[in-house]
Amino acid sequence: MRAVRVHEYESPPTIDEVSDPGVEGPLDVLVEVNAAGVCRTDLHIVEGQWADKSGVQLPYVLGHENAGTVVEIGSAVSNVDVGDRVILHPLVTCGLCRACRAGDDVHCENSAFPGIDSDGGMATYLRTNARACVVLEESLAPVDVAALADAGLTAYHAVRKAVPLLYPGAHVVIIGAGGLGHIGVQVLKELSPADLTVVDRSSEALSVAEELGARNTVRADGDQVAKVLDATDGKGAHVVLDFVGEGGTQKEGITMTRDAGSYFVVGYGGALDVPTIDMVSREINVIGNLVGSYNDLQELMVLAARGRVRQRTRTYPFDRALEAFEDLEHGRLPGMRAVLEPVAL
Amino acid sequence: MRAVRVHEYESPPTIDEVSDPGVEGPLDVLVEVNAAGVCRTDLHIVEGQWADKSGVQLPYVLGHENAGTVVEIGSAVSNVDVGDRVILHPLVTCGLCRACRAGDDVHCENSAFPGIDSDGGMATYLRTNARACVVLEESLAPVDVAALADAGLTAYHAVRKAVPLLYPGAHVVIIGAGGLGHIGVQVLKELSPADLTVVDRSSEALSVAEELGARNTVRADGDQVAKVLDATDGKGAHVVLDFVGEGGTQKEGITMTRDAGSYFVVGYGGALDVPTIDMVSREINVIGNLVGSYNDLQELMVLAARGRVRQRTRTYPFDRALEAFEDLEHGRLPGMRAVLEPVAL
Amino acid sequence: MRAVRVHEYESPPTIDEVSDPGVEGPLDVLVEVNAAGVCRTDLHIVEGQWADKSGVQLPYVLGHENAGTVVEIGSAVSNVDVGDRVILHPLVTCGLCRACRAGDDVHCENSAFPGIDSDGGMATYLRTNARACVVLEESLAPVDVAALADAGLTAYHAVRKAVPLLYPGAHVVIIGAGGLGHIGVQVLKELSPADLTVVDRSSEALSVAEELGARNTVRADGDQVAKVLDATDGKGAHVVLDFVGEGGTQKEGITMTRDAGSYFVVGYGGALDVPTIDMVSREINVIGNLVGSYNDLQELMVLAARGRVRQRTRTYPFDRALEAFEDLEHGRLPGMRAVLEPVAL
Amino acid sequence: MRAVRVHEYESPPTIDEVSDPGVEGPLDVLVEVNAAGVCRTDLHIVEGQWADKSGVQLPYVLGHENAGTVVEIGSAVSNVDVGDRVILHPLVTCGLCRACRAGDDVHCENSAFPGIDSDGGMATYLRTNARACVVLEESLAPVDVAALADAGLTAYHAVRKAVPLLYPGAHVVIIGAGGLGHIGVQVLKELSPADLTVVDRSSEALSVAEELGARNTVRADGDQVAKVLDATDGKGAHVVLDFVGEGGTQKEGITMTRDAGSYFVVGYGGALDVPTIDMVSREINVIGNLVGSYNDLQELMVLAARGRVRQRTRTYPFDRALEAFEDLEHGRLPGMRAVLEPVAL
Repeated sequence: MRAVRVHEYESPPTIDEVSDPGVEGPLDVLVEVNAAGVCRTDLHIVEGQWADKSGVQLPYVLGHENAGTVVEIGSAVSNVDVGDRVILHPLVTCGLCRACRAGDDVHCENSAFPGIDSDGGMATYLRTNARACVVLEESLAPVDVAALADAGLTAYHAVRKAVPLLYPGAHVVIIGAGGLGHIGVQVLKELSPADLTVVDRSSEALSVAEELGARNTVRADGDQVAKVLDATDGKGAHVVLDFVGEGGTQKEGITMTRDAGSYFVVGYGGALDVPTIDMVSREINVIGNLVGSYNDLQELMVLAARGRVRQRTRTYPFDRALEAFEDLEHGRLPGMRAVLEPVAL
Repeated sequence: MRAVRVHEYESPPTIDEVSDPGVEGPLDVLVEVNAAGVCRTDLHIVEGQWADKSGVQLPYVLGHENAGTVVEIGSAVSNVDVGDRVILHPLVTCGLCRACRAGDDVHCENSAFPGIDSDGGMATYLRTNARACVVLEESLAPVDVAALADAGLTAYHAVRKAVPLLYPGAHVVIIGAGGLGHIGVQVLKELSPADLTVVDRSSEALSVAEELGARNTVRADGDQVAKVLDATDGKGAHVVLDFVGEGGTQKEGITMTRDAGSYFVVGYGGALDVPTIDMVSREINVIGNLVGSYNDLQELMVLAARGRVRQRTRTYPFDRALEAFEDLEHGRLPGMRAVLEPVAL
Repeated sequence: MRAVRVHEYESPPTIDEVSDPGVEGPLDVLVEVNAAGVCRTDLHIVEGQWADKSGVQLPYVLGHENAGTVVEIGSAVSNVDVGDRVILHPLVTCGLCRACRAGDDVHCENSAFPGIDSDGGMATYLRTNARACVVLEESLAPVDVAALADAGLTAYHAVRKAVPLLYPGAHVVIIGAGGLGHIGVQVLKELSPADLTVVDRSSEALSVAEELGARNTVRADGDQVAKVLDATDGKGAHVVLDFVGEGGTQKEGITMTRDAGSYFVVGYGGALDVPTIDMVSREINVIGNLVGSYNDLQELMVLAARGRVRQRTRTYPFDRALEAFEDLEHGRLPGMRAVLEPVAL
Repeated sequence: MRAVRVHEYESPPTIDEVSDPGVEGPLDVLVEVNAAGVCRTDLHIVEGQWADKSGVQLPYVLGHENAGTVVEIGSAVSNVDVGDRVILHPLVTCGLCRACRAGDDVHCENSAFPGIDSDGGMATYLRTNARACVVLEESLAPVDVAALADAGLTAYHAVRKAVPLLYPGAHVVIIGAGGLGHIGVQVLKELSPADLTVVDRSSEALSVAEELGARNTVRADGDQVAKVLDATDGKGAHVVLDFVGEGGTQKEGITMTRDAGSYFVVGYGGALDVPTIDMVSREINVIGNLVGSYNDLQELMVLAARGRVRQRTRTYPFDRALEAFEDLEHGRLPGMRAVLEPVAL
């Protein structure tokens, strides 16, 4: 089969001819990949930023946002059949550790992360396991949802955790209405009646946020903290969801958070720097957020199937995969995600 | 009446003769003070550290940990009577804002904090209001519980918030088994079956913690992080309660926290400094903690009345009040709290 | 002033000339009543059904769904001013008992219920207290919201309790889309993305429910249980909200509830009759629901101010008050609520 | 191997020689049974009460409370090894349905229940799967814990669900301190500081409850409701855990429940009969309870390993298995459980 592989850090990946993977264990599932999202993390991998964390052996296949068609299943697989269209949870989990048994797959003690620490989905076939497969409703095409498998799922998860803190009349701020953030806006509108203010540097992103239902938008032009405080009776928001997490949004986000409120870190890159007396005297919380669980992904697909969460995408035939990487790197995909089609439907 | 007042920052307070306060509003309660805790915060106030935050006018009366006997009540007071022994919640709250209406008195939008921003309880009488009064069971003497009104209540509140995250087999670490921490140890043993490890620099504090039921103690001799990781299968604790919050415990506490776990900041002085990628990739939470609610104080008094939470104290007759400040300042009160007796029972 | 009073059970109330009430306690608030909802409970009171439960002395003034204008306040009232437009929480609560201190006003240990156990709001003036007053945004007219103060608030409260059990793809059934139920439908659509099925005997009520966003409607023609099971993969709904609670809906509602699901009783009249083995083997819950808290009412007013929750009403000038009782009794108010205007704005 | 099998309802089971089961699927685990609890449910099965519900084909092997030694594992089993001592969760679950993925194994959509609907553990060997195996700490002997696998686990689960409703000073009632109830008492003392009152017909059971830490015991001699109300300021308990569920405890339990409180049904046999107006006007909850989850069982084993939960047992060599059934049937096992030893260690 063909696959987009990294051979050396800081060199562009190449499209290689490699041997097909196959089902090995009884819970394995082999998926023909119809859609594979290209994510900023892929660029970071190529730059070598993940080399130590992942410990992956080069060369290996990229691609951690995948959807496709089941072509072979192991002997113990009972939840999907050959021919099913599926979106894949990014982790391959064990189902036996305490975290898995508590519904918290993401902290599985024995997981693999295809595309990060093992061969991913930018290829004709991907081997995953039964626990990663969410069957798609007929109305959902793999190309439309693949890019929700990691980035969108992260946004869904963070919003889902924040919703119990909100109520009609409560305030919520989303910092950053880009790839993750604009999914966050859509999910929030579906799950909560709270007053939403969106902060972004880009007027275009703010226009989109408004169309998606943000009650209030604030241009991040230097005065954003004051504007958010103005919009919240000077008290700040009950919840701030920071989809940026660098370049100063951390400090701003915490200042935008109301006493007894919660600041959710989703984006990363910078560092938190908060005096403990502020954490204590204001009794605020800083909540870390990773990708969502399997059940989160299933719920997100319900919203997608109803047209309540949409991701704008540009598709690339597989032999133009490297072009997608370049378009992403050079900012030629404003407000949309690149999706490869290893096997177009 | 007599009162311990601050006249000038960085000068010792003095015992003054001042006019008696009286009931003014219909919800006011006048309390003869039988016991007033002396707290490290009182030293900080004298040093001027709270001058800006509190904005209090000098001179004023210190004392924010008070218990005594009701001597006069306003026309609308229905929950206490003259003669009742009471411990006082440190805040005087309005009962009408959303926070008060949600049981979150501490974030009342219209509160006063006697001893911090208005006249406190190191005096013959203290004026507070009906919402601050918790009636004491007969078995509880004001001198035995006064010092729980703020410090102990803070420890109770933090532990109470942490308990839903724990279960048999889960790990919890308490950093700092001093004034607040050793109350935290006692409360935790009452509310949770989780495995408790206590970390402190002092062997004496660790011995006390062991007597109080800590399963494990770790001397903070430089190797404390490694020892906690050893005691938790290398994964860290589900909950870390940091009663120090300075001198490096912040970074250590976060390292001791398991992925998907929570680090509770209770003590303060230092600053948090955490890369956002750590918050995200480990999906951890940093939880700020202020003093507890009125209902928390009522619950803490239930535990105290049963002898399940005890505070060691040294009492001082009121005319030796300044001696208490000096003993505290010079570390002459190891493992115990100073309590003044403005009107000894 | 004029007031609608009950003099004798099973005789129609009369409009009497009585002396004006006034502010007595420091937390009292005197309200000029601009709108007073007429509720089925008022008919039951007249029939004597509440005589024992309320223990009220006759004659007394009816009216427990009130909105109006503050005309006088007690000395300790700080949350409303003369001239404010307010909707009144139905209970007058103490603010000092544990329930009040926990945000659970409705289980206040020292409450009064004007219109039920003391003089109510079908009169020129009503005396209540500060804790009952929710200030209305300018866009909300008392006549439009008064009928939400009890019935609507009950629906809001039940839905709010159910929402944490729901998620995208979960199923919820509302039995009875009448007075309470159609508010429940609107609130549910605002607070939850779950799939809503509405069951009612009336096609008109079902049409309204559909317009309000119900995904599915089922005519209660004898086959309703089977139809709900069909709509839920044969498993039943995660949550069933029963706004009827009599005439067999109890048994039907429990059958419509999925294993591990919850049946919320809101309407009443009948009795539950469930073998304990069914509760256990299916691990289901039966959840009782009373009127909402003060904060619930504040949240409901946020939704009303945004036009997201609307109550259809027919207004009656005060001297035609008895006509409203008759119209209600004879079913001449389909899908709407009667509201008296003691002092029209 | 040898096995206790039911051949015909209403006839005593017999010890038969049957062929050994073996590992078939990749997640199967074969366990040599060292201990199998004999439960009242086994008597009910023999009487035919479960014939319709289970639909099991006769003859089949009894035994749903099992502990033993792993002797063979399927190719995909990674959490246990041959030689491990294990206690078995009573259900064999799929790990792939939404319930399993949410930590709610008990409502697995594809489960089997050995000893109820398929061959159980009163035999030399039992085939179960990886998801049912909890590895025992060395200090725990299979004979000491086997009887906790179903009955004890049910008590643990109910108490665990109730704990968040309790706090220091809250009241909890346990009705029935027999097989399940006395485990409930021990678990409650470990997990909650609430005031516990135990109600039972037997003075012996009450003495045991007192030794286990009940603050208050009430003999069920006809006056038990009044006595519980007396012990709870006339208001009833915040939580009532009914381990009987028949013979009138249902009505009594609900009367013992405080307004806004919760009545937990654990035992069964009778029927609930509650006017909906009582559910509503008192805003109470009736909570059904089934057996606990896998993680619940793991937590219970932590408490057992620390000696905090103990089950009194009488052991029977396997060839005297039928004697155990008779002893149980004729009440010759007061306060203790019969445990068979198919393969004694």
